[in-house]
Amino acid sequence: MPRPSLAPIAAALPETVPFTGPEAIVRRSGIKLRARIGANENPFGPAPSVIAAMSAAARESWHYGDPENHDLREAIAAHLGIAPANVMPGEGVDAILGMAVRLFAGPGSTVVTSLGGYPTFNYHIAGYGAVMHTVPYVEDREDIDALARAARETGAAMVYLANPDNPMGTWWDADSVERFIAAVPDTTMIVLDEAYGEFAPAGTLPAFDPDRANLLRMRTFSKAYGLAGARVGYVLGEAANISAFNRIRNHFGISNVAQAAAIAALADSAHLEGSLAAVRASLEDTAAIARRHGLAPLPTATNFLAVDCGRDGAYAQAILDGLAQRGVFVRKPVVAGLNRCIRISAGTEADRALLDQALGEVLAGLE
Amino acid sequence: MPRPSLAPIAAALPETVPFTGPEAIVRRSGIKLRARIGANENPFGPAPSVIAAMSAAARESWHYGDPENHDLREAIAAHLGIAPANVMPGEGVDAILGMAVRLFAGPGSTVVTSLGGYPTFNYHIAGYGAVMHTVPYVEDREDIDALARAARETGAAMVYLANPDNPMGTWWDADSVERFIAAVPDTTMIVLDEAYGEFAPAGTLPAFDPDRANLLRMRTFSKAYGLAGARVGYVLGEAANISAFNRIRNHFGISNVAQAAAIAALADSAHLEGSLAAVRASLEDTAAIARRHGLAPLPTATNFLAVDCGRDGAYAQAILDGLAQRGVFVRKPVVAGLNRCIRISAGTEADRALLDQALGEVLAGLE
Repeated sequence: MPRPSLAPIAAALPETVPFTGPEAIVRRSGIKLRARIGANENPFGPAPSVIAAMSAAARESWHYGDPENHDLREAIAAHLGIAPANVMPGEGVDAILGMAVRLFAGPGSTVVTSLGGYPTFNYHIAGYGAVMHTVPYVEDREDIDALARAARETGAAMVYLANPDNPMGTWWDADSVERFIAAVPDTTMIVLDEAYGEFAPAGTLPAFDPDRANLLRMRTFSKAYGLAGARVGYVLGEAANISAFNRIRNHFGISNVAQAAAIAALADSAHLEGSLAAVRASLEDTAAIARRHGLAPLPTATNFLAVDCGRDGAYAQAILDGLAQRGVFVRKPVVAGLNRCIRISAGTEADRALLDQALGEVLAGLE
Repeated sequence: MPRPSLAPIAAALPETVPFTGPEAIVRRSGIKLRARIGANENPFGPAPSVIAAMSAAARESWHYGDPENHDLREAIAAHLGIAPANVMPGEGVDAILGMAVRLFAGPGSTVVTSLGGYPTFNYHIAGYGAVMHTVPYVEDREDIDALARAARETGAAMVYLANPDNPMGTWWDADSVERFIAAVPDTTMIVLDEAYGEFAPAGTLPAFDPDRANLLRMRTFSKAYGLAGARVGYVLGEAANISAFNRIRNHFGISNVAQAAAIAALADSAHLEGSLAAVRASLEDTAAIARRHGLAPLPTATNFLAVDCGRDGAYAQAILDGLAQRGVFVRKPVVAGLNRCIRISAGTEADRALLDQALGEVLAGLE
């Protein structure tokens, strides 16, 4: 029976979910989710002032949100001390990454990223018919020299760097990032994903340069601001590149509630400071738990810990599976070398107690 | 100075907003918005039960929403009496239309639509490099015979029909739509946009056929359910086509709050019935106001009225501008023939009183 064909690029794509949600794991396994510490969410959540703003905005949901996101754009710009023309909000960094690939990496062009880097970016590379070129991690960090070299040697349309990095939590200081940026050709668009930037030590994020025409910097309200479920992020860049997003973006894509949440979140710096401190303390405790169980947490500049389980990928997977059977949801890198680790997000005190107990049981069973 | 190039399709696109929001008009004109009756929103809003569900979900915004939208998908399927495999939710029909074009209309392929039809669909045609082929309206309705013929004659990858239609509010009955579907080649994907379907008389929406492989039907919570600002819609179709959206969709795109809102909205059928009745009464009153001022409202199966101003496009534009100067926000078709009309959305009693007064003043000034 004749039927419509998929367009050529779409026809070549798998039907995939970049990340399986814990909800799906619960539905398939029947095991109750007890500690949700696998998706790098922030359990210290949005501020009460933000939740109040969201509830108020819910009552305004009968009308569309401002398609120009004017007030949010102004608020972000004021927060960062830059011009609104250098900021574009979007419905989460995932959506913005897709738009960036669509704008700057045509079908058949080369996009450079790290082997084991953010899967949703890879999903967009394939999704728009570009060709992925990967560079291995070195010592659990993205290899900025090799990434820049690969961009030069392949004439890449785009190169991706997450700083701080996901899934390893490692990072480069601002001087190193500046060196990386300078080493990438002017014709290669750099996507610098700073989703975890607020958690990083001072001196990690380079100063913003409004004239840098080959750099897009991604930020989000999902992590430090505790608003993963609201879907709002933004991209910083040179004004002409930012304006190019108007060619393809979903203009009404950010809900009223999300716009209001993000504006309120920026206004509540005390909550942000408290949340960052709570995450730090949570990760210190998580690291201590890991060490007590004989595992080796890596340094982190994020809201999660990569924990070296000390053996191979199969061993780390067995630990992850054992935790899952006890309702403790974590994730892990899949690429050889990195896959000796499991990745544990900052949790509440109750989450950590469950982790501690479950880890003990699982490791005892694997001796 | 060398810089990254835009990908070829993106390079050819304008930097545009398919619809200018009333917020932007207010910012540019300085005129206070008094009656927001131009964007086909539903001022009778979401149910109190929905707003309560949204507020509860706001408190859960620290975590991502279910990327499979499992509960929402089940709820929609149960509501329609079809299988979940035939339903895919998305972050508003605008986003779903973009995905449909990306999946089924490759660069250079032909997409047929009506001249003066939904601009955001046209935005996606251009956005993915397809070629738009338009068919004029006849007697203020989309010309289903000519649309099907154009699909055949151009070997179109896709053909678009809004039923009921936006911007004219006119509609075809289900038998006519079935005739249209049968007349389109099996290899052409039909996009049947039923965003206004709940407002239409019984006998407008064809029965759902899960085996029809060249039909995607768009529905939304933005109109009848009063949730335009929440960003949630869905597409109905044959299972393989629905599943294809998993290749490219933004898996975490629908916020927690929006998922909760949509599920709660489906559960509150009493509110829906009340809202539909309120819209009907509002439009009857709006039609009476228009007639009292010597204007001719068209029949409508939507939550808005196209009102024939009886002269040319410049005259209708002058009425629209005069209303805008009085803070009454309406829109109008732009295509010759249709542009003799202004398009007024169902408003509250206060909105209609403002419209009545403003229309009187404006028309008196134009005599």
